[in-house]
Amino acid sequence: MNKRGPPCELITIGNELLSGRTLNTNAQWLADILTKLGGTVVRCTIIRDELSDIVSSIKESVQRGTIIIITSGGLGPTYDDTTLAGVALATGCELYVNKTALGHLEERYKSMKKKGLIVDSEITPPRRKMAKIPLGSQVLKNPLGSAPGILLSYESSTIICLPGVPDEMKAIMLKRVVPILKKRLPKFYRVEATIQISGITESVLAPILDNVLSTVKNIYLKSHPMGFEDGISKIDIEIISSSLRRNSSKGSMDLASLGLRRQIEEKGGHILKIIKDSNR
Amino acid sequence: MNKRGPPCELITIGNELLSGRTLNTNAQWLADILTKLGGTVVRCTIIRDELSDIVSSIKESVQRGTIIIITSGGLGPTYDDTTLAGVALATGCELYVNKTALGHLEERYKSMKKKGLIVDSEITPPRRKMAKIPLGSQVLKNPLGSAPGILLSYESSTIICLPGVPDEMKAIMLKRVVPILKKRLPKFYRVEATIQISGITESVLAPILDNVLSTVKNIYLKSHPMGFEDGISKIDIEIISSSLRRNSSKGSMDLASLGLRRQIEEKGGHILKIIKDSNR
Repeated sequence: MNKRGPPCELITIGNELLSGRTLNTNAQWLADILTKLGGTVVRCTIIRDELSDIVSSIKESVQRGTIIIITSGGLGPTYDDTTLAGVALATGCELYVNKTALGHLEERYKSMKKKGLIVDSEITPPRRKMAKIPLGSQVLKNPLGSAPGILLSYESSTIICLPGVPDEMKAIMLKRVVPILKKRLPKFYRVEATIQISGITESVLAPILDNVLSTVKNIYLKSHPMGFEDGISKIDIEIISSSLRRNSSKGSMDLASLGLRRQIEEKGGHILKIIKDSNR
Repeated sequence: MNKRGPPCELITIGNELLSGRTLNTNAQWLADILTKLGGTVVRCTIIRDELSDIVSSIKESVQRGTIIIITSGGLGPTYDDTTLAGVALATGCELYVNKTALGHLEERYKSMKKKGLIVDSEITPPRRKMAKIPLGSQVLKNPLGSAPGILLSYESSTIICLPGVPDEMKAIMLKRVVPILKKRLPKFYRVEATIQISGITESVLAPILDNVLSTVKNIYLKSHPMGFEDGISKIDIEIISSSLRRNSSKGSMDLASLGLRRQIEEKGGHILKIIKDSNR
């Protein structure tokens, strides 16, 4: 069995993600970065801008014992931005106007007025709403927009709320969240490879995967059928080897590649290409 | 409030969707088609290739009273393809080898052998596994691949399982599932528009949205901030009007557009462009 990092979950919020309007690139980006940091993303829940759905999905994730919960979306000034209200209800923490967050907003609107970007820098109720955060949260300053993110520890979970605008989400994640997660997540040595094969179908490959999985440690295998080209079946085999020791990750990868190669060729298949990626 | 179709949910299955490897285009495609057919996609759950996660996510969705549940992924011949086993456990329906599904597989492998695509057309255990479906399911023949889909009615839900390979998923959905859903889902008249505006920020727009929502029937509004361009704030406002009568959908859309336009201009904003889409 492949060694796994602590369970992480994503909750991405927005009607546009469920109507077909918007492709959920935030979820892929966050999954990629959490995986690289040593976490295991075990679930992503996409919900509408509905307070009750936000409350239930956060409660469910906490109950599953998720270590890191990251939400994106629903932090803005409009009526349907209710993520922080949902977190407050799910965790029983009161919402209050945080002075640090309010200070950031005042600063930002003043600076925007100075630059001629807005007419009025007054902190109106919709602007003030963005500074209302659950008691006990840490404010994550937004370097690119108005709505700050937050980080809140609750039961065994750390709940991190980020904006839905991709650039703002990424900026807060990279600048504020990654340094915190680096300290909290274990350092796994992860080696990845993709073996592109041809000439055998997935049903012939299936028992070969079973065989390698039952003999090599710290290995995850997954076949991705790529269809037929000129009448020849093509499959990408994804191999991930991860462990707490670098040598055993590399050793398992070598052994798995060798085993796959020999058995595939025995069945009349061909190895087209091996793509290695040890950065992940 | 915007009129809503019956609640639909998506469950997309695959470790590659949670490791950052693969962008979940299946979820967007399915959400788009369900929305166009008159359903309301209320949740999408992305889970790993784990039997226990498949079982729990299907149970949870049924318990929420979801009318249409569509899964994608996990129907193939390899060890980690366990979607139908999960559906069987979640619904208490036994798995059995379905003769129709087995017939399709025999036919397919014979034809592939004839074309020289495979060496052996024997129905090996991994191939036979794809014909094992929950008792009471309807087989949805796969015109492009081996693994069939299924449709199973359970409590108030219809559970539809599709492959994860996008072309196969789309082919079964369009050919087998859409005709069934067309009969089951109500015909909503849905009009959509996007108003692109500039010159005011989202926090200034917020009370305008509140005002229009509280005065116009059958309307949904959402602001999508598009950042600043040459120092000017840009926002896309999504408007959806849907109702069971065509005239009231169109009437509400006209009224909402008019109301937004007037109030935005009063606050010093500008209407850049109105994009209408009445096909959805």
